[in-house]
Amino acid sequence: MTKRVPVVEKIMSANDRIASQNRAKLDNESIYSLNLMASPGGGKTSLIELTIKNLADRLRLAVIDGDVATSIDADRAASAGAVAVQINTGGECHLDAVMLQSALRQVELDEIDLLIVENVGNLICPASFKLGTHKNVLISSIPEGDDKPYKYPGMYRGVDALVINKIDLLPYVPFDMDYFRRGVEVLNPGLITFPLSCSTQEGLDSWISWVLQQTQSNRII
Amino acid sequence: MTKRVPVVEKIMSANDRIASQNRAKLDNESIYSLNLMASPGGGKTSLIELTIKNLADRLRLAVIDGDVATSIDADRAASAGAVAVQINTGGECHLDAVMLQSALRQVELDEIDLLIVENVGNLICPASFKLGTHKNVLISSIPEGDDKPYKYPGMYRGVDALVINKIDLLPYVPFDMDYFRRGVEVLNPGLITFPLSCSTQEGLDSWISWVLQQTQSNRII
Repeated sequence: MTKRVPVVEKIMSANDRIASQNRAKLDNESIYSLNLMASPGGGKTSLIELTIKNLADRLRLAVIDGDVATSIDADRAASAGAVAVQINTGGECHLDAVMLQSALRQVELDEIDLLIVENVGNLICPASFKLGTHKNVLISSIPEGDDKPYKYPGMYRGVDALVINKIDLLPYVPFDMDYFRRGVEVLNPGLITFPLSCSTQEGLDSWISWVLQQTQSNRII
Repeated sequence: MTKRVPVVEKIMSANDRIASQNRAKLDNESIYSLNLMASPGGGKTSLIELTIKNLADRLRLAVIDGDVATSIDADRAASAGAVAVQINTGGECHLDAVMLQSALRQVELDEIDLLIVENVGNLICPASFKLGTHKNVLISSIPEGDDKPYKYPGMYRGVDALVINKIDLLPYVPFDMDYFRRGVEVLNPGLITFPLSCSTQEGLDSWISWVLQQTQSNRII
């Protein structure tokens, strides 16, 4: 077991090198990119569908979907109107930079403004692997419970924006928003949050505006 | 990368060896044991609390709680009346047999009838690591969505019982129970299922009876 740390460090630094290459490739094509992470069923695919539907007339979108199995998510993104590529990890619990590198080869990058990467549903492992995307976004969802920041600190600490999904279920489940937000604030002070519901679309506008503004700022720079 | 598979195989077979030792230790003390797995927020801790409350007058219970961080879950199990040991994995996304081996040393095994192991909230990695427990139980929850068997086949294939939690939320979220059950049936034909709600306690009795019957049969054998 004493040899484990150096091996892991080697894997991580190899991953980070490819992540930097991915970023350079995206920047070279003026593509803004988000890495969306969540628990299974947190609402990643639903949020991506709505983002596509609301931005398709202003941005050219591509979605790269990571899943252990099936192409359900990529099919949903494609139906919503985006270029969609499925990565099946074949058991791996996260995406890594090499998987994204391969997937990027399947997209006509000069025809894209915004790339959304949907990571594998998992609150632990994806936090450890940089992909090269510009921002990491976490989706929490109300029925998961208000203790998740405390129990999955690595994930909450490493993200640049937080969507709090399924707020329409607040009347039906125990969830103390103050307790949840205090946990988030300790781990990631000042983190921008978007409470919303993909079902009722309440709160969706702020998220859509933020994504649009981020993508447009990226193109100007 | 070509050296990866043998290394992983070596780790897995070392894990399986310790898992067999854990099982022998539990059998030697006539302890029946369950390994509870679920997504983050699926309801593992709530189900454990209710199981303790309903069985504490008939069985002597211990809970071993695996979490990335905090002792929130073990504290809840202890408050409900069980012997509780917390394992903090420090970032690891699953329990393994060595972690359970260490935790078992902290329990007075001759005073226990039923051991419940609460695995780390994750639908992928825990499925790959045997612990040595008698049965693997998965908790699905309604708000996670009906496509989870299709997207996390490894987990659904490897379990001995399935709890379908949060059925009180069925009126508020889209969830096609037939589609869900068809996915389960393909992967794991004839799997015993317990649809229930930890909030309303609807359906809880069948689960409690099953756990009691399983534990008692184990002692008779």
